[in-house]
Amino acid sequence: MCNLKTNNMNDQNKLIAKQLLDEWNRQLNRASKLFDELTDEQIQKEVAPGRNTGTYLLGHLVAVHDALFPLLGVGEKLYPQLEEVFIKSPDKSGLERPSVKELKDYWNEVNKELGNHFNKFTIDEWLQKHTAVPEEDFLKEPHRNRLNVLISRTNHLAYHLGQLAFLKN
Amino acid sequence: MCNLKTNNMNDQNKLIAKQLLDEWNRQLNRASKLFDELTDEQIQKEVAPGRNTGTYLLGHLVAVHDALFPLLGVGEKLYPQLEEVFIKSPDKSGLERPSVKELKDYWNEVNKELGNHFNKFTIDEWLQKHTAVPEEDFLKEPHRNRLNVLISRTNHLAYHLGQLAFLKN
Repeated sequence: MCNLKTNNMNDQNKLIAKQLLDEWNRQLNRASKLFDELTDEQIQKEVAPGRNTGTYLLGHLVAVHDALFPLLGVGEKLYPQLEEVFIKSPDKSGLERPSVKELKDYWNEVNKELGNHFNKFTIDEWLQKHTAVPEEDFLKEPHRNRLNVLISRTNHLAYHLGQLAFLKN
Repeated sequence: MCNLKTNNMNDQNKLIAKQLLDEWNRQLNRASKLFDELTDEQIQKEVAPGRNTGTYLLGHLVAVHDALFPLLGVGEKLYPQLEEVFIKSPDKSGLERPSVKELKDYWNEVNKELGNHFNKFTIDEWLQKHTAVPEEDFLKEPHRNRLNVLISRTNHLAYHLGQLAFLKN
Protein backbone atom coordinates (compact mmCIF):
# COMPACT_ATOMS: atom_id res chain seq x y z
CA MET A 1 0.00 0.00 0.00
CA CYS A 2 2.82 2.32 0.94
CA ASN A 3 4.74 1.43 -2.21
CA LEU A 4 1.68 1.90 -4.35
CA LYS A 5 1.22 5.38 -2.94
CA THR A 6 4.83 6.48 -3.31
CA ASN A 7 4.99 5.04 -6.83
CA ASN A 8 1.88 6.94 -7.73
CA MET A 9 3.25 10.21 -6.33
CA ASN A 10 6.57 9.67 -7.96
CA ASP A 11 4.81 9.14 -11.29
CA GLN A 12 2.85 12.34 -10.75
CA ASN A 13 6.04 14.25 -10.04
CA LYS A 14 7.74 12.91 -13.13
CA LEU A 15 4.71 13.63 -15.25
CA ILE A 16 4.60 17.27 -14.17
CA ALA A 17 8.33 17.79 -14.77
CA LYS A 18 7.94 16.22 -18.22
CA GLN A 19 5.02 18.51 -19.04
CA LEU A 20 7.07 21.57 -18.13
CA LEU A 21 10.00 20.38 -20.20
CA ASP A 22 7.67 19.63 -23.12
CA GLU A 23 6.33 23.17 -22.99
CA TRP A 24 9.86 24.60 -22.93
CA ASN A 25 10.71 22.51 -26.00
CA ARG A 26 7.48 23.50 -27.71
CA GLN A 27 8.32 27.21 -27.34
CA LEU A 28 11.94 26.60 -28.43
CA ASN A 29 10.72 24.81 -31.55
CA ARG A 30 8.33 27.61 -32.41
CA ALA A 31 11.19 30.10 -32.12
CA SER A 32 13.64 27.97 -34.11
CA LYS A 33 11.05 27.48 -36.85
CA LEU A 34 10.48 31.24 -37.03
CA PHE A 35 14.23 32.03 -37.15
CA ASP A 36 14.59 29.50 -39.97
CA GLU A 37 11.72 30.97 -41.95
CA LEU A 38 12.93 34.56 -41.74
CA THR A 39 15.65 35.90 -44.02
CA ASP A 40 18.62 37.67 -42.42
CA GLU A 41 17.20 40.89 -43.83
CA GLN A 42 13.86 40.32 -42.13
CA ILE A 43 15.50 39.49 -38.78
CA GLN A 44 17.51 42.71 -38.88
CA LYS A 45 14.32 44.80 -38.98
CA GLU A 46 12.55 46.33 -35.98
CA VAL A 47 9.64 44.14 -34.88
CA ALA A 48 7.53 47.32 -34.68
CA PRO A 49 8.43 50.98 -35.37
CA GLY A 50 10.97 52.19 -32.79
CA ARG A 51 11.11 48.79 -31.05
CA ASN A 52 13.84 46.16 -30.81
CA THR A 53 15.18 44.51 -33.94
CA GLY A 54 14.85 40.77 -34.49
CA THR A 55 18.65 40.54 -34.27
CA TYR A 56 18.63 42.08 -30.81
CA LEU A 57 15.82 39.83 -29.59
CA LEU A 58 17.56 36.74 -31.01
CA GLY A 59 20.81 37.75 -29.29
CA HIS A 60 18.90 38.58 -26.10
CA LEU A 61 17.26 35.15 -26.03
CA VAL A 62 20.59 33.39 -26.65
CA ALA A 63 22.25 35.40 -23.87
CA VAL A 64 19.41 34.76 -21.39
CA HIS A 65 19.40 31.04 -22.14
CA ASP A 66 23.22 30.90 -22.02
CA ALA A 67 23.06 32.35 -18.50
CA LEU A 68 21.09 29.28 -17.42
CA PHE A 69 24.24 27.13 -17.29
CA PRO A 70 25.73 28.95 -14.27
CA LEU A 71 22.30 29.80 -12.80
CA LEU A 72 21.30 26.13 -12.76
CA GLY A 73 24.78 25.07 -11.69
CA VAL A 74 25.52 22.91 -14.71
CA GLY A 75 28.46 24.72 -16.26
CA GLU A 76 29.81 27.95 -17.65
CA LYS A 77 28.31 30.19 -20.33
CA LEU A 78 29.24 29.22 -23.87
CA TYR A 79 29.16 32.83 -25.12
CA PRO A 80 29.77 35.13 -22.12
CA GLN A 81 30.51 38.07 -24.42
CA LEU A 82 26.80 38.29 -25.34
CA GLU A 83 25.71 39.56 -21.92
CA GLU A 84 27.20 43.01 -22.38
CA VAL A 85 25.65 43.48 -25.83
CA PHE A 86 22.26 41.81 -25.46
CA ILE A 87 21.36 42.04 -21.78
CA LYS A 88 23.19 44.98 -20.25
CA SER A 89 22.91 47.22 -23.30
CA PRO A 90 19.89 48.24 -25.37
CA ASP A 91 19.47 47.47 -29.06
CA LYS A 92 21.03 50.57 -30.56
CA SER A 93 24.12 50.63 -28.33
CA GLY A 94 26.50 50.68 -31.29
CA LEU A 95 28.42 47.78 -29.75
CA GLU A 96 29.84 45.25 -32.15
CA ARG A 97 27.68 42.18 -32.45
CA PRO A 98 27.84 38.77 -34.13
CA SER A 99 26.14 38.23 -37.49
CA VAL A 100 22.61 36.83 -37.68
CA LYS A 101 24.07 33.56 -38.97
CA GLU A 102 26.40 33.34 -35.96
CA LEU A 103 23.59 34.17 -33.54
CA LYS A 104 21.40 31.46 -35.07
CA ASP A 105 24.24 28.96 -34.59
CA TYR A 106 24.67 30.07 -30.97
CA TRP A 107 20.91 29.73 -30.44
CA ASN A 108 20.97 26.11 -31.59
CA GLU A 109 24.15 25.30 -29.68
CA VAL A 110 23.02 26.76 -26.35
CA ASN A 111 19.59 25.14 -26.44
CA LYS A 112 20.97 21.77 -27.51
CA GLU A 113 23.47 21.78 -24.66
CA LEU A 114 20.82 22.91 -22.16
CA GLY A 115 18.61 20.07 -23.39
CA ASN A 116 21.38 17.58 -22.59
CA HIS A 117 21.25 18.67 -18.95
CA PHE A 118 17.48 19.12 -18.72
CA ASN A 119 16.78 15.64 -20.04
CA LYS A 120 18.90 14.14 -17.28
CA PHE A 121 17.49 16.10 -14.31
CA THR A 122 15.44 14.02 -11.90
CA ILE A 123 12.52 15.69 -10.15
CA ASP A 124 14.67 16.07 -7.03
CA GLU A 125 17.30 17.84 -9.09
CA TRP A 126 14.70 20.16 -10.65
CA LEU A 127 13.59 21.10 -7.16
CA GLN A 128 17.09 21.97 -5.98
CA LYS A 129 17.86 25.63 -5.47
CA HIS A 130 19.33 27.67 -8.27
CA THR A 131 22.71 29.28 -7.66
CA ALA A 132 21.40 32.85 -7.22
CA VAL A 133 19.64 32.02 -3.94
CA PRO A 134 21.56 31.62 -0.67
CA GLU A 135 21.13 28.33 1.21
CA GLU A 136 19.45 29.99 4.22
CA ASP A 137 16.89 31.81 2.05
CA PHE A 138 16.07 28.61 0.19
CA LEU A 139 14.97 26.92 3.40
CA LYS A 140 12.24 29.54 3.73
CA GLU A 141 11.58 29.93 -0.01
CA PRO A 142 11.74 26.45 -1.55
CA HIS A 143 10.05 27.69 -4.74
CA ARG A 144 13.30 29.40 -5.74
CA ASN A 145 14.37 26.22 -7.47
CA ARG A 146 15.52 25.21 -10.94
CA LEU A 147 12.00 24.38 -12.02
CA ASN A 148 10.94 27.95 -11.33
CA VAL A 149 13.71 29.17 -13.60
CA LEU A 150 12.47 26.85 -16.34
CA ILE A 151 8.90 28.09 -15.92
CA SER A 152 9.81 31.78 -16.00
CA ARG A 153 12.24 31.43 -18.94
CA THR A 154 9.57 29.60 -20.94
CA ASN A 155 7.23 32.54 -20.45
CA HIS A 156 10.05 34.98 -21.22
CA LEU A 157 10.54 33.20 -24.53
CA ALA A 158 6.80 33.24 -25.31
CA TYR A 159 6.70 36.98 -24.53
CA HIS A 160 9.38 37.79 -27.10
CA LEU A 161 8.02 35.24 -29.59
CA GLY A 162 4.81 37.26 -29.71
CA GLN A 163 6.92 40.23 -30.81
CA LEU A 164 9.18 38.33 -33.22
CA ALA A 165 6.08 37.00 -35.00
CA PHE A 166 5.60 40.53 -36.39
CA LEU A 167 8.70 40.08 -38.55
CA LYS A 168 6.71 37.73 -40.77
CA ASN A 169 4.90 39.32 -43.68
CA MET B 1 9.90 5.89 6.85
CA CYS B 2 7.09 5.31 4.42
CA ASN B 3 5.18 8.28 5.78
CA LEU B 4 8.23 10.47 5.61
CA LYS B 5 8.69 9.60 1.97
CA THR B 6 5.07 10.13 0.97
CA ASN B 7 4.92 13.38 2.93
CA ASN B 8 8.01 14.57 1.15
CA MET B 9 6.64 13.68 -2.29
CA ASN B 10 3.31 15.17 -1.47
CA ASP B 11 5.06 18.39 -0.47
CA GLN B 12 6.97 18.36 -3.75
CA ASN B 13 3.74 17.91 -5.69
CA LYS B 14 2.07 20.75 -3.88
CA LEU B 15 5.08 22.99 -4.31
CA ILE B 16 5.16 22.49 -8.07
CA ALA B 17 1.44 23.13 -8.47
CA LYS B 18 1.81 26.28 -6.38
CA GLN B 19 4.73 27.47 -8.53
CA LEU B 20 2.64 27.05 -11.69
CA LEU B 21 -0.29 28.89 -10.17
CA ASP B 22 2.04 31.67 -8.98
CA GLU B 23 3.36 32.11 -12.51
CA TRP B 24 -0.19 32.24 -13.91
CA ASN B 25 -1.04 34.94 -11.36
CA ARG B 26 2.17 36.81 -12.11
CA GLN B 27 1.32 37.02 -15.80
CA LEU B 28 -2.30 37.97 -15.01
CA ASN B 29 -1.09 40.78 -12.77
CA ARG B 30 1.29 42.09 -15.43
CA ALA B 31 -1.59 42.17 -17.92
CA SER B 32 -4.04 43.79 -15.49
CA LYS B 33 -1.48 46.43 -14.60
CA LEU B 34 -0.92 47.19 -18.28
CA PHE B 35 -4.67 47.40 -19.02
CA ASP B 36 -5.05 49.80 -16.08
CA GLU B 37 -2.19 52.02 -17.24
CA LEU B 38 -3.43 52.36 -20.82
CA THR B 39 -6.17 54.80 -21.75
CA ASP B 40 -9.14 53.47 -23.74
CA GLU B 41 -7.76 55.37 -26.71
CA GLN B 42 -4.40 53.62 -26.43
CA ILE B 43 -6.01 50.19 -26.12
CA GLN B 44 -8.04 50.79 -29.28
CA LYS B 45 -4.88 51.23 -31.35
CA GLU B 46 -3.10 48.51 -33.34
CA VAL B 47 -0.16 47.10 -31.35
CA ALA B 48 1.93 47.41 -34.54
CA PRO B 49 0.98 48.64 -38.03
CA GLY B 50 -1.53 46.27 -39.63
CA ARG B 51 -1.63 44.02 -36.54
CA ASN B 52 -4.35 43.36 -33.96
CA THR B 53 -5.69 46.18 -31.83
CA GLY B 54 -5.34 46.14 -28.06
CA THR B 55 -9.13 45.88 -27.84
CA TYR B 56 -9.11 42.70 -29.91
CA LEU B 57 -6.28 41.15 -27.88
CA LEU B 58 -8.01 42.07 -24.62
CA GLY B 59 -11.26 40.51 -25.87
CA HIS B 60 -9.33 37.50 -27.17
CA LEU B 61 -7.66 36.90 -23.81
CA VAL B 62 -10.98 37.22 -21.96
CA ALA B 63 -12.64 34.78 -24.38
CA VAL B 64 -9.79 32.25 -24.15
CA HIS B 65 -9.76 32.42 -20.35
CA ASP B 66 -13.57 32.24 -20.21
CA ALA B 67 -13.41 29.00 -22.19
CA LEU B 68 -11.41 27.47 -19.33
CA PHE B 69 -14.56 27.00 -17.21
CA PRO B 70 -16.04 24.29 -19.46
CA LEU B 71 -12.59 22.99 -20.54
CA LEU B 72 -11.57 22.38 -16.93
CA GLY B 73 -15.03 21.15 -16.03
CA VAL B 74 -15.78 23.80 -13.43
CA GLY B 75 -18.74 25.59 -14.95
CA GLU B 76 -20.13 27.45 -17.92
CA LYS B 77 -18.65 30.45 -19.72
CA LEU B 78 -19.60 33.78 -18.21
CA TYR B 79 -19.55 35.59 -21.59
CA PRO B 80 -20.15 32.97 -24.32
CA GLN B 81 -20.93 35.70 -26.87
CA LEU B 82 -17.22 36.66 -26.98
CA GLU B 83 -16.11 33.49 -28.75
CA GLU B 84 -17.65 34.47 -32.11
CA VAL B 85 -16.12 37.97 -32.04
CA PHE B 86 -12.71 37.37 -30.46
CA ILE B 87 -11.78 33.75 -31.25
CA LYS B 88 -13.63 32.67 -34.39
CA SER B 89 -13.38 36.06 -36.13
CA PRO B 90 -10.38 38.28 -36.83
CA ASP B 91 -9.99 41.82 -35.51
CA LYS B 92 -11.58 43.77 -38.32
CA SER B 93 -14.65 41.53 -38.70
CA GLY B 94 -17.05 44.45 -38.29
CA LEU B 95 -18.95 42.48 -35.64
CA GLU B 96 -20.36 44.46 -32.77
CA ARG B 97 -18.17 44.29 -29.69
CA PRO B 98 -18.32 45.40 -26.06
CA SER B 99 -16.63 48.66 -25.02
CA VAL B 100 -13.08 48.65 -23.62
CA LYS B 101 -14.53 49.39 -20.19
CA GLU B 102 -16.84 46.38 -20.41
CA LEU B 103 -14.02 44.14 -21.64
CA LYS B 104 -11.82 45.23 -18.74
CA ASP B 105 -14.65 44.37 -16.33
CA TYR B 106 -15.07 40.96 -17.99
CA TRP B 107 -11.29 40.38 -17.75
CA ASN B 108 -11.35 40.97 -14.01
CA GLU B 109 -14.51 38.95 -13.48
CA VAL B 110 -13.38 35.88 -15.45
CA ASN B 111 -9.94 35.74 -13.85
CA LYS B 112 -11.30 36.26 -10.36
CA GLU B 113 -13.80 33.44 -10.79
CA LEU B 114 -11.13 31.16 -12.30
CA GLY B 115 -8.92 31.92 -9.31
CA ASN B 116 -11.66 30.76 -6.96
CA HIS B 117 -11.52 27.33 -8.61
CA PHE B 118 -7.74 27.19 -9.11
CA ASN B 119 -7.04 27.97 -5.47
CA LYS B 120 -9.14 24.99 -4.41
CA PHE B 121 -7.71 22.36 -6.79
CA THR B 122 -5.63 19.66 -5.12
CA ILE B 123 -2.71 18.22 -7.07
CA ASP B 124 -4.85 15.18 -7.92
CA GLU B 125 -7.49 17.48 -9.32
CA TRP B 126 -4.93 19.40 -11.39
CA LEU B 127 -3.82 16.09 -12.88
CA GLN B 128 -7.32 15.05 -13.89
CA LYS B 129 -8.12 15.11 -17.57
CA HIS B 130 -9.62 18.19 -19.16
CA THR B 131 -13.01 17.83 -20.82
CA ALA B 132 -11.74 17.94 -24.43
CA VAL B 133 -9.93 14.60 -24.13
CA PRO B 134 -11.85 11.29 -24.21
CA GLU B 135 -11.41 8.90 -21.27
CA GLU B 136 -9.69 6.21 -23.38
CA ASP B 137 -7.16 8.65 -24.86
CA PHE B 138 -6.34 10.02 -21.42
CA LEU B 139 -5.21 6.57 -20.25
CA LYS B 140 -2.48 6.65 -22.90
CA GLU B 141 -1.85 10.42 -22.71
CA PRO B 142 -1.97 11.40 -19.03
CA HIS B 143 -0.32 14.74 -19.78
CA ARG B 144 -3.59 15.98 -21.29
CA ASN B 145 -4.64 17.19 -17.88
CA ARG B 146 -5.81 20.44 -16.33
CA LEU B 147 -2.27 21.43 -15.38
CA ASN B 148 -1.24 21.29 -19.02
CA VAL B 149 -4.02 23.71 -19.85
CA LEU B 150 -2.77 26.08 -17.14
CA ILE B 151 0.80 25.87 -18.46
CA SER B 152 -0.15 26.52 -22.07
CA ARG B 153 -2.58 29.34 -21.27
CA THR B 154 0.08 31.05 -19.16
CA ASN B 155 2.41 31.05 -22.16
CA HIS B 156 -0.42 32.16 -24.43
CA LEU B 157 -0.93 35.15 -22.16
CA ALA B 158 2.82 35.95 -22.10
CA TYR B 159 2.90 35.77 -25.92
CA HIS B 160 0.18 38.41 -26.30
CA LEU B 161 1.55 40.49 -23.40
CA GLY B 162 4.75 40.94 -25.41
CA GLN B 163 2.61 42.48 -28.15
CA LEU B 164 0.35 44.54 -25.88
CA ALA B 165 3.45 46.13 -24.32
CA PHE B 166 3.90 48.03 -27.59
CA LEU B 167 0.79 50.10 -26.79
CA LYS B 168 2.78 51.93 -24.13
CA ASN B 169 4.54 55.08 -25.23
